[in-house]
Amino acid sequence: MIARGCIRRNARQLTTSTEQAKLFKAVTFLHSNNTKKKRVVILGSGWAGYSFARTLDPAKYERVVISPRSYFVFTPLLASTSVGTLEFRAILEPVRRAPGGLRFYQGWADDVDFSRKVIRVEANAIDKLQHDLSPISASTAASEVATETRPPKGEVFDVEYDKLVIAVGAYSQTFGIAGVREHAHFLRDIGDARRIRLRVLSLFEQCSYPASPGGKDGKTAGKPLTEDEKKSLLHFVIVGGGPTGIEFAAELHDLIHEDLKKIYPELMPLVRITVYDVAPKVLPMFDKALAQYAMEVFARQGIQVRTEHHLQQIRAADGTLGSAHGGLSIKIKEYGDKEVEAGLVVWSTGLMQNPFVEQMVNKQFTAVNEAEAPKSHLLKDPRTGGIVTDGYLRARITDNKISDSNKTAISTAAPVLPDVFVIGDCAVVEGNESLPKTAQVASQQAAHLARQLNRSTDESIDIKSVSKPFKFRNWGTLTYLGGWKAIHQSSADTLRGWVAWIVWRGAYLTRSMSVRNKLMVPVYWFVNWVFGRDISRF
Amino acid sequence: MIARGCIRRNARQLTTSTEQAKLFKAVTFLHSNNTKKKRVVILGSGWAGYSFARTLDPAKYERVVISPRSYFVFTPLLASTSVGTLEFRAILEPVRRAPGGLRFYQGWADDVDFSRKVIRVEANAIDKLQHDLSPISASTAASEVATETRPPKGEVFDVEYDKLVIAVGAYSQTFGIAGVREHAHFLRDIGDARRIRLRVLSLFEQCSYPASPGGKDGKTAGKPLTEDEKKSLLHFVIVGGGPTGIEFAAELHDLIHEDLKKIYPELMPLVRITVYDVAPKVLPMFDKALAQYAMEVFARQGIQVRTEHHLQQIRAADGTLGSAHGGLSIKIKEYGDKEVEAGLVVWSTGLMQNPFVEQMVNKQFTAVNEAEAPKSHLLKDPRTGGIVTDGYLRARITDNKISDSNKTAISTAAPVLPDVFVIGDCAVVEGNESLPKTAQVASQQAAHLARQLNRSTDESIDIKSVSKPFKFRNWGTLTYLGGWKAIHQSSADTLRGWVAWIVWRGAYLTRSMSVRNKLMVPVYWFVNWVFGRDISRF
Repeated sequence: MIARGCIRRNARQLTTSTEQAKLFKAVTFLHSNNTKKKRVVILGSGWAGYSFARTLDPAKYERVVISPRSYFVFTPLLASTSVGTLEFRAILEPVRRAPGGLRFYQGWADDVDFSRKVIRVEANAIDKLQHDLSPISASTAASEVATETRPPKGEVFDVEYDKLVIAVGAYSQTFGIAGVREHAHFLRDIGDARRIRLRVLSLFEQCSYPASPGGKDGKTAGKPLTEDEKKSLLHFVIVGGGPTGIEFAAELHDLIHEDLKKIYPELMPLVRITVYDVAPKVLPMFDKALAQYAMEVFARQGIQVRTEHHLQQIRAADGTLGSAHGGLSIKIKEYGDKEVEAGLVVWSTGLMQNPFVEQMVNKQFTAVNEAEAPKSHLLKDPRTGGIVTDGYLRARITDNKISDSNKTAISTAAPVLPDVFVIGDCAVVEGNESLPKTAQVASQQAAHLARQLNRSTDESIDIKSVSKPFKFRNWGTLTYLGGWKAIHQSSADTLRGWVAWIVWRGAYLTRSMSVRNKLMVPVYWFVNWVFGRDISRF
Repeated sequence: MIARGCIRRNARQLTTSTEQAKLFKAVTFLHSNNTKKKRVVILGSGWAGYSFARTLDPAKYERVVISPRSYFVFTPLLASTSVGTLEFRAILEPVRRAPGGLRFYQGWADDVDFSRKVIRVEANAIDKLQHDLSPISASTAASEVATETRPPKGEVFDVEYDKLVIAVGAYSQTFGIAGVREHAHFLRDIGDARRIRLRVLSLFEQCSYPASPGGKDGKTAGKPLTEDEKKSLLHFVIVGGGPTGIEFAAELHDLIHEDLKKIYPELMPLVRITVYDVAPKVLPMFDKALAQYAMEVFARQGIQVRTEHHLQQIRAADGTLGSAHGGLSIKIKEYGDKEVEAGLVVWSTGLMQNPFVEQMVNKQFTAVNEAEAPKSHLLKDPRTGGIVTDGYLRARITDNKISDSNKTAISTAAPVLPDVFVIGDCAVVEGNESLPKTAQVASQQAAHLARQLNRSTDESIDIKSVSKPFKFRNWGTLTYLGGWKAIHQSSADTLRGWVAWIVWRGAYLTRSMSVRNKLMVPVYWFVNWVFGRDISRF
């Protein structure tokens, strides 16, 4: 350790890359020969990846995180930031600040060589993707990585691993519906929330000019908005009646009725919020009585809920409403030819696999580093396309013929890659295939896996002696409904109204959040309650 | 009042624009015939415009603010937000939330008809300009309004005024130096601060990849950064040794040495900060001893100050350093052909007039609404191009022949437009031509003018009986130097070191700030001191 520290200090004083490179190799060589800490590389900085990286013991393992996003997002409070109830930074945790220290590379995992245990990484610290005001979110823009629209390649380098944890998450699914990717806003990441916030506030400002030009000479260059056009722009459409969509509708309602009502009183009669879902019932994870209560709350608040409605297309509205103001025209099957106009569409339904996952499940490789070894590939779940794992969260592979040298680590009944684990939205745990893709499931898997690895670094020990298979415990579901009301359901109880609201606010303070944000979240709640939400756009 | 309120409530229920337009005219007609409150229209939302609008008595005047920016920026703390010592919203005040209520239109004043007392306004609530990550700031982009690169015109409408206050401020001056507008960052508005913050943090992340590709197959698509390239990217250049430039250098130093040192320790030997100025001495408003003390503090902190250096050109650096990483190559006269490379250039020197001001001073009009009246134009200051005013901040005009009907309001010795006032950076007060263009001067002019108008709404009274001419009181200058040291100079005393730092922090809490921000600023100072500045980029 002392020799290594000494070398590291000297390394800082070297000034040429050649000398540093030689020393880098020397350090690596040293690393392999001393008290070897296994290196665990985590792909992803979401609920699964970040929670796992934080919980893995840095005294036992070297932790390396690779992700195109350098921070973790506390997604249950994302809808609150999209209207200004909270500020964005209060729900971010920079990966580099994880307690205990870890190494971080901002980049995409392009490829993994499972035989040689090497990841090919492409750097992406150059901020080009995330700041376009167009609705395409960072996660969607990330999906363009696989297509020709990809930005210039950053530098490429390799990272070796002893153990690999794939936690790359999933993308929003558009079901191939025309216009969604170009015109709708997702709500899965901070960039999405920021764009939505700016769009909502801008729409109110755009509608706040005098109704008539009032110009004495009659010359006007731009056409002022008519009443009907303002009603179109102030129509806020949410597609998807799950917790994300419902909570966004609730938060938007609060923003409008607590703050914008005082600033733009004349526009209030023109505002509408509508939630569309293809299912017969919104909030499917709640029992019927609670879902019904939610609908009653929404009805009293004036939020329209249209179940069993199918969106077919989104396009720009006709004329300057579309071209200048960004107004949209939506085709809904149940309305035939009559299109619905709106100023904003938030798309919060459906997940699809990350292109990286698609690439990995189709990749042929040899499970062991031998020339004659038979080819394998990761087992893919036929329903969702995710990577199948066993109960110990190890990636399952398809080939049954395993060489003797690996036999102790692999169950002959269900072959796995013993050093590759998969958690979160991209994982499908055998025996638990129906688990939803939620933050709760992802963080429980992450905690389980971290404890499993922390218990023993000795790979010769049978995993069954250090760990049990993963079992999900449902801590219940909470959804905010607006107006200081919420609903909560768990196996123990159901709550509704302001009691559930208190649980809702309290629950979030205890999870996966730094001390800084545990402090800032209540500060923002208080300040925004007393002084109103901030409405500045920049 | 009751009738007017009644009409306003009914107006909200009308649903067609025709009906609303008729009512709008009816209200205007009613307005002219009842207890007439004069309408004061303020162009601008900076120190002069916002301070004036807040101080003008809403019981005596109808207040209307027109500005392309819907919020006021507390500029003395802008440098702090550009590195994360404070968050952006803590220094913003939305115009619409000014106490006592006022009407606001987000837009550009295109033209003013001084005879008919009408302003032609172009709406700009559609957010297109402010979110580009390229260095061109919102204020610079605003200057493109006058050129062909202007975005599509928003709706155009007219606003009538009884009194007009021109407070449109000034733009950053580039002295025609090639490459400044394209590659340098200004620091005058929130968009500028946000771009600088993202750029600084991105540069550190870009330099944090392994020195060698480490790829076993030797294939690399992007070329990794060499040591020298990292030194170029981590060279932060500030042009302008006035308080803005010095404070930014100081804040940047704090960010690097308090926070980034812990996150990117290996990059610290490569970081440099350099301040260039053409003058022989930086901080010209301070006496020699204090300026010298500032230089000593900077020297101990490792900040290089190069006085009497002239920047001639900025261009993209050669190769991928420029094309992929945004590195810059700077030509400095004193270095001959050898260019200086940098990752960021902050341009904080020089002001030039707003195109609106240039248009106004060149505009011929008749001071009174008569066909035969002689032409006038506003008096333009030959040195700065600003609009000249008398001691009562009324716009001076050039024509001496004034018709009898206006004689009581105009001094025959120095003709003015009695209902048009000019304050702030775009104003030049006769007898005070050497006043600097600072927030202090602008806010004192605003306060003076507001008190002058509040004292009497009766225009038949000679202005000299309600007001004295404007006189600037120098409350002193404060500049932060980094490392919890500052300098302060006023006619009463000079302070340096941590004592001045306490005055610096305390002074800002008392001025022009809402209660909300008076609370949030110390909260951020505390939280960022305990937990470190936030480094997430989105």
